[in-house]
Amino acid sequence: MTLSSKEIWDSIEKIRVQAPLVHNITNYVVMNSTANALLAIGASPVMAHATEEVKEMTGIAGALVINIGTLSSHWIEAMFSAAGKARERQIPIVFDPVGAGATTLRTETARTFIETCSPDIIRGNASEIMALQAADIQTKGVDSSAASSEALEIGRSVNAASGSVVCVSGETDYVIAGEEVIRIRNGHPMMQRVTGMGCTATALCGAFAAVEPNALKATAHAMAVMGITGEMAVERAEGPASLQNGFIDILYGMKESDIDQYLRGEG
Amino acid sequence: MTLSSKEIWDSIEKIRVQAPLVHNITNYVVMNSTANALLAIGASPVMAHATEEVKEMTGIAGALVINIGTLSSHWIEAMFSAAGKARERQIPIVFDPVGAGATTLRTETARTFIETCSPDIIRGNASEIMALQAADIQTKGVDSSAASSEALEIGRSVNAASGSVVCVSGETDYVIAGEEVIRIRNGHPMMQRVTGMGCTATALCGAFAAVEPNALKATAHAMAVMGITGEMAVERAEGPASLQNGFIDILYGMKESDIDQYLRGEG
Amino acid sequence: MTLSSKEIWDSIEKIRVQAPLVHNITNYVVMNSTANALLAIGASPVMAHATEEVKEMTGIAGALVINIGTLSSHWIEAMFSAAGKARERQIPIVFDPVGAGATTLRTETARTFIETCSPDIIRGNASEIMALQAADIQTKGVDSSAASSEALEIGRSVNAASGSVVCVSGETDYVIAGEEVIRIRNGHPMMQRVTGMGCTATALCGAFAAVEPNALKATAHAMAVMGITGEMAVERAEGPASLQNGFIDILYGMKESDIDQYLRGEG
Repeated sequence: MTLSSKEIWDSIEKIRVQAPLVHNITNYVVMNSTANALLAIGASPVMAHATEEVKEMTGIAGALVINIGTLSSHWIEAMFSAAGKARERQIPIVFDPVGAGATTLRTETARTFIETCSPDIIRGNASEIMALQAADIQTKGVDSSAASSEALEIGRSVNAASGSVVCVSGETDYVIAGEEVIRIRNGHPMMQRVTGMGCTATALCGAFAAVEPNALKATAHAMAVMGITGEMAVERAEGPASLQNGFIDILYGMKESDIDQYLRGEG
Repeated sequence: MTLSSKEIWDSIEKIRVQAPLVHNITNYVVMNSTANALLAIGASPVMAHATEEVKEMTGIAGALVINIGTLSSHWIEAMFSAAGKARERQIPIVFDPVGAGATTLRTETARTFIETCSPDIIRGNASEIMALQAADIQTKGVDSSAASSEALEIGRSVNAASGSVVCVSGETDYVIAGEEVIRIRNGHPMMQRVTGMGCTATALCGAFAAVEPNALKATAHAMAVMGITGEMAVERAEGPASLQNGFIDILYGMKESDIDQYLRGEG
Repeated sequence: MTLSSKEIWDSIEKIRVQAPLVHNITNYVVMNSTANALLAIGASPVMAHATEEVKEMTGIAGALVINIGTLSSHWIEAMFSAAGKARERQIPIVFDPVGAGATTLRTETARTFIETCSPDIIRGNASEIMALQAADIQTKGVDSSAASSEALEIGRSVNAASGSVVCVSGETDYVIAGEEVIRIRNGHPMMQRVTGMGCTATALCGAFAAVEPNALKATAHAMAVMGITGEMAVERAEGPASLQNGFIDILYGMKESDIDQYLRGEG
């Protein structure tokens, strides 16, 4: 599959026109920044985690984003409940196994979620994706400690076992669906110095999946926009805070010519 | 009632001098940004939600702000407990029914809160205010999907039923207390692309209500300052992030001449 | 003990090279901003609060930071559990008694934590540190209402009773360990208008303590870097938001010459 800047732009325009409601059950650290990223691209974010209301909220959403970054038992229950509703309604589920591999709670929750809820898309860094499969790797907190390239094979394997589109993000992002692998070489290392950039990527996958039924394309489009926006933001940043702010401003004002100019990906 | 830039400025000066403690039980998404807005205007914010301590915290506060943006059962209990204390001490209660209409939990909690706790001020967008009354309208997440003008009549009706000053915010903000309606035409559409701007408006209502005993005036002053600050911030913003940052910087440095120059409201 | 800019710089370089994992159980308001500060200085932050996973997360961390800013009973349990693991592994514990003195829950939790868990470092403003000792002082929310100089004696007394290095932050920061008192006169009053700057200082203490075994030095280095970064950020800030952003950018790009030029401290 070819990664086309024209198709990426079409997806962005659909998001801006349709303003899909993206229901996030995510971690405390990134709630504000991911809501702002979703608003900047034109989606309509909502955060809701009470078991009493998640089904109803997912019931009016265009996509569900589940992120286990600051997990606890009540929230796990809500995640499964919302995902059940999303499956019933056949709206896309995007899953971010933040910190899988660092603790048993995260690893087990992530594996069970994938097995039970069949997310359409899984996005994580190399360590996290590896932890979904191999019990013998311990992640260092929520950062990646495995090389992205090493993880491609594990990504393929997680994709084969789960049926989910798997995105292993890193210097090169790999988006994997069966025989298809899209590689995206956008982004910049300074993005790792901003908390929750990975979570933002996952949230954007939700926005794209809400308007683009092909989950492989939706994920690749989101990751390309993520990387392009980050690169453009680094060009004028003096550090991680101006990168974070520039990221939102640039995402808001993204033009088709920006994608044409910056895209470095191949399908 | 006339909306006077002199009186708005007097309120700001009172906040800066008195630095009222504003106790917020609010949603996770906006805790940081609303705390920063309260600090920028000169108030002293505190966030506390444990049932074990909310009464004591409200017991030393100058105003209580209740916001149901990321509701769950423990927090609801704390909201009612804190409000009971605020009623007992006769300090102002400001209520933000975030996402009322989107789920039963939010709609029911909002209605019960208003009935039981008699907030001095209710601020929401048109959809949310409408949901306080009519069971047949479903909000799209936390964004407004009803025109502000349509909501004026519902705002009047909610005001009549509750006795609370009701602010329906939108392109025009309506602040309603019985026969009195103040219209404020400040603000800018880009503010909707920053998460929690409505919640910030509500928090500012708390700061103004802590120093201005007339709840209609306090609300109108807060909404005017909100809109003016947003407009000034948009003038130099490149997108939502620079708007959000500029908003805080401008609020911090607000001068009487800014209000004179920008105010577009009528009582 | 002399406060040496050379030693401060050595600590920063160690953080940048070792990227210690700092496990934070902290308040909702500052999770994003403290994570970004830890990333900016080169550490690797993780937030985790579930009782099911905190021991495991502390088990791989280089330091544990406990902050009681938005306390509730489940979180208290997790704080004690994580601290037990930290003691067992002999990694440093840094404690921030946010709002101690404002409510019984906070005061009692703080005192019990200090007594039970023996944190290596306690950092708070004057009111908070005073509340650790004297039951008759009520803090106004989370801001300081006692002069820093008055608190020096109480700081000494808390240090004597607890054995923890005590930092009383204010216009002058006092870092106290027995007979040793380091005074740091960096910083700027506008920093108080940014929410969570104190919490950021505490988080940085965690990063420094992870690489510098002498807790007095680690705390003094962190507070000096905090104050220097803040001062440099104020020079180019137009208000609290640009201060907050500039703080992160400057922290990220901090050079040895910046410390040489700005440091105003004495041991």
